[in-house]
Amino acid sequence: MTQAASLQHFLKHYQTATSVGISLDTSRASSESGKDAALTNDMLERAKSEMTALEAGEIANADEQRMVGHYWLRTPAMAPTETMKADIEKARSQVIAFANEVHEGRFYVSGGTVESILLIGIGGSALGPLLLDMLYQDKARLPLYVMDNTDPDGIQRTLKAIPALSRTLVVVVSKSGGTRETRNGMLATEYYFEQKSVPFSEHAIAVTGEGSALYQHAKEQAWRKTFPIWDWVGGRTSIWSAVGLLPAALQGIDVQEFLDGAAALDEASRSATIEGDLALQLAAAWYRLGEGRGERAMVVLPYKDRLELLGKYLQQLVMESLGKRLDRDGREVHQGLTVYGNKGSTDQHSYIQQLRDGLNNFFAVFVEVLHDAESWNAQLVAERVLEDEATAGDFLQGFLLGTREALTESNRPSITLTLTDCSERSIGALLALFERAVGYYASMINVNAYHQPGVEAGKKAASHIVSMLTALRSVLQETAQASAITDLLPQLDDAYQSPELLFKLLERMHANDEVSRSGDGDNPAAWTYEWKGR
Amino acid sequence: MTQAASLQHFLKHYQTATSVGISLDTSRASSESGKDAALTNDMLERAKSEMTALEAGEIANADEQRMVGHYWLRTPAMAPTETMKADIEKARSQVIAFANEVHEGRFYVSGGTVESILLIGIGGSALGPLLLDMLYQDKARLPLYVMDNTDPDGIQRTLKAIPALSRTLVVVVSKSGGTRETRNGMLATEYYFEQKSVPFSEHAIAVTGEGSALYQHAKEQAWRKTFPIWDWVGGRTSIWSAVGLLPAALQGIDVQEFLDGAAALDEASRSATIEGDLALQLAAAWYRLGEGRGERAMVVLPYKDRLELLGKYLQQLVMESLGKRLDRDGREVHQGLTVYGNKGSTDQHSYIQQLRDGLNNFFAVFVEVLHDAESWNAQLVAERVLEDEATAGDFLQGFLLGTREALTESNRPSITLTLTDCSERSIGALLALFERAVGYYASMINVNAYHQPGVEAGKKAASHIVSMLTALRSVLQETAQASAITDLLPQLDDAYQSPELLFKLLERMHANDEVSRSGDGDNPAAWTYEWKGR
Repeated sequence: MTQAASLQHFLKHYQTATSVGISLDTSRASSESGKDAALTNDMLERAKSEMTALEAGEIANADEQRMVGHYWLRTPAMAPTETMKADIEKARSQVIAFANEVHEGRFYVSGGTVESILLIGIGGSALGPLLLDMLYQDKARLPLYVMDNTDPDGIQRTLKAIPALSRTLVVVVSKSGGTRETRNGMLATEYYFEQKSVPFSEHAIAVTGEGSALYQHAKEQAWRKTFPIWDWVGGRTSIWSAVGLLPAALQGIDVQEFLDGAAALDEASRSATIEGDLALQLAAAWYRLGEGRGERAMVVLPYKDRLELLGKYLQQLVMESLGKRLDRDGREVHQGLTVYGNKGSTDQHSYIQQLRDGLNNFFAVFVEVLHDAESWNAQLVAERVLEDEATAGDFLQGFLLGTREALTESNRPSITLTLTDCSERSIGALLALFERAVGYYASMINVNAYHQPGVEAGKKAASHIVSMLTALRSVLQETAQASAITDLLPQLDDAYQSPELLFKLLERMHANDEVSRSGDGDNPAAWTYEWKGR
Repeated sequence: MTQAASLQHFLKHYQTATSVGISLDTSRASSESGKDAALTNDMLERAKSEMTALEAGEIANADEQRMVGHYWLRTPAMAPTETMKADIEKARSQVIAFANEVHEGRFYVSGGTVESILLIGIGGSALGPLLLDMLYQDKARLPLYVMDNTDPDGIQRTLKAIPALSRTLVVVVSKSGGTRETRNGMLATEYYFEQKSVPFSEHAIAVTGEGSALYQHAKEQAWRKTFPIWDWVGGRTSIWSAVGLLPAALQGIDVQEFLDGAAALDEASRSATIEGDLALQLAAAWYRLGEGRGERAMVVLPYKDRLELLGKYLQQLVMESLGKRLDRDGREVHQGLTVYGNKGSTDQHSYIQQLRDGLNNFFAVFVEVLHDAESWNAQLVAERVLEDEATAGDFLQGFLLGTREALTESNRPSITLTLTDCSERSIGALLALFERAVGYYASMINVNAYHQPGVEAGKKAASHIVSMLTALRSVLQETAQASAITDLLPQLDDAYQSPELLFKLLERMHANDEVSRSGDGDNPAAWTYEWKGR
């Protein structure tokens, strides 16, 4: 290619959403196989029209008979009813007003004004707040602690790390209120507060659906406040609701700018043609690169420390939305798009060795942030502390562009997203871009992006194991003598007839001193277990 | 399968290294394709004998003409010379003695005793310390801050987060001393200390190769100490050298137990037959599952908050070691094994939706920790705070075992590693298990696991871009008028004739106010840029 032709090729695939300062470059995202034709114009048009219908309030999540409304959270005027519009706006105002109350020292918990936040939630109820915390923790007015698992060890660690319990605001987040990890974390925290003689209810706030189990609990216990979340907001897009906005506002993040950035990206996408719609072009690039089957993993590489959790956040958004067994017509398709990645240039000293030289089974998404940093860096430059007149930021760009060139040379495709800065507005737009791309891509491959049957099934599978454990404890207590797996099994219900699971439950009970174990060290099948107590 | 047969199948593939309390279960790791035969007994024997030669001091990293000695770091008696053995032991004693000196308040920095640690390093020089910090931060005697990138914004954030600079010990880690990210971080930190009138040299310690650029710098500036690292230790296995041990010991982690756990696993593996060698069986499972071509990604799922960074650590260890273009005979093979994963059950509310239902392109590695937690949890149980008499830990196990069953039911293979606890000894053994498995697997696929040519190439590519940027700045300063890309390009050397790269450099200069930009908003090719200054 001549210089002019190469620049032309690049610029043809380099598009900017000027209202938010984000550019998408798909010039290095061409498919080798030439199967691009599979992505027809009809499919692109259908993706756009389905998005229009969804935004107008269609039951886009058919399996759960729900509307899909995260786009309304940033543009309330689009909500399909006046009530919904009013609800969204009211919740947002309440979040902002409450954060101001806390910041201005007008809200008291048992020990005085608020000095830190403990968030209890999992998955969509924690990853958004964690992403924003990583982005803006240096401006944080209140440090954030997150309990996002049912690991008793982790629960303890989190509680013990909080400097002043009596100055801590606890935000419990669960749409249904039935998520076990969150419920366990809440119960343990209530207990811990009680042990430390701190009145939990004076510290507690719920973000939950009206009427949920958590909602009832909060009312009964006279918690300080509840903020709403609605069934038309999925966990993985709940960052735009009180789930994300409340911790963000408490930390001092400009949530209005964050929402406005997303709204601006939405509007630019909505009003654009097929060619000019960045989100649609991003989805189309995913489709082409993976042959519409997710045949290449997406490696997210933001060259900016603040964005280190972006890959993890997108892992949830993309894989939970697109990783589905059935398409919308009930056919088995086993779809998906694998996502991983941390940050550059750090990752170049790690797995990028494989990206450059090894398996050609991925495409990279470089995220470039043009603005280096605040003023102190400028001073660094002026004083020429770094050698060769080059700054730390020059090297960061050098690593990004050098790696991008190297991947192209070794025939590894990549996409580059360029942000002006990491302001709330830019980040809002960036996340909205990926959300819309996920929606479009789901249309292209004909899956429901808004349910998560596997997650629901996982909850049931866990309950089954816990019931088996409870049954096993009863049997051991009643038996009250050393018993082998083959002795115990017949005493358990038909549903629990797995010697392997029994073995695994007994091994953990043994490690936690609930049972004693004896028998030949080399033959687990002959080991016996005897109840010791709890 | 009958119950007895199913238990037998499980136990046949369930092996325990009793000296360290780690079990490996490969009963659910069978290959669908039946191509297992490709992995011959000869290959397994060769893997073992190559490991023996490597441990005896062979030049196992032929490309760099280096020995590979991380196994000696935990068993100094195996080092091939008396001098090396003495060096290893001396360094270890010095690390422990120094940590004691700091803990006992006998080591002073400019503002008094040490209250926090700043580690400056990247890749292998940071990930080990970060992993151990996540594991044991609740016992940390000194909080750890890590600067692991050349992001000026991130550098600032890290420095500003440190509570008392005058009570901070700075540990700069770089084997060669030439890694730009680390060097930039160090120069910026020196400058920052100077601005705050804190004498940097009184706070600084180097971990580096004797005679390196960093070593020279530390000597010239009269830094407090230097600890050695040797050319026969790769960055991704440097956790066993002062790189990992020094921050760990300073944090109060029992480094001797950590080393002993690894040594015990090594010894168990070394003395075992092919069938009894857990590391070899783990490598063999990888080989079978991915047809010796890495056709399935490895998803690392520890059900324990402390182990959240294990997936990221293994991502580096595995992908940097195995992701290679050429095999040891110089043939193009483009090998590798993709690794990702965070922690369970949290990830079940995220991408595990796709693992259960979507693309069947991975195998899971469940990491189960039998021991729940310390005594406080026992109290929780006694008080029956959680419902149905089940504890948070019961649910954690329920989620793990339930997900494991579900993956098997939907024909997704998995491996399960069971640890008794997360003690230093257990974690040492766990990491050693993966290191040996990587070494064995590299033998099976005939690649050099101990070099990283792509990482080296990445450094060169970045330097090229930085040089181009420096050249561009000169041209802009000399031109001193608004110039388009086509005007600037002819003024640059042949090596820099890329209009696209030029555009990208100019865009960042514009964002950082080094140049002004004018021209038609819709046509970047016609934009002009003019020097403003730095």
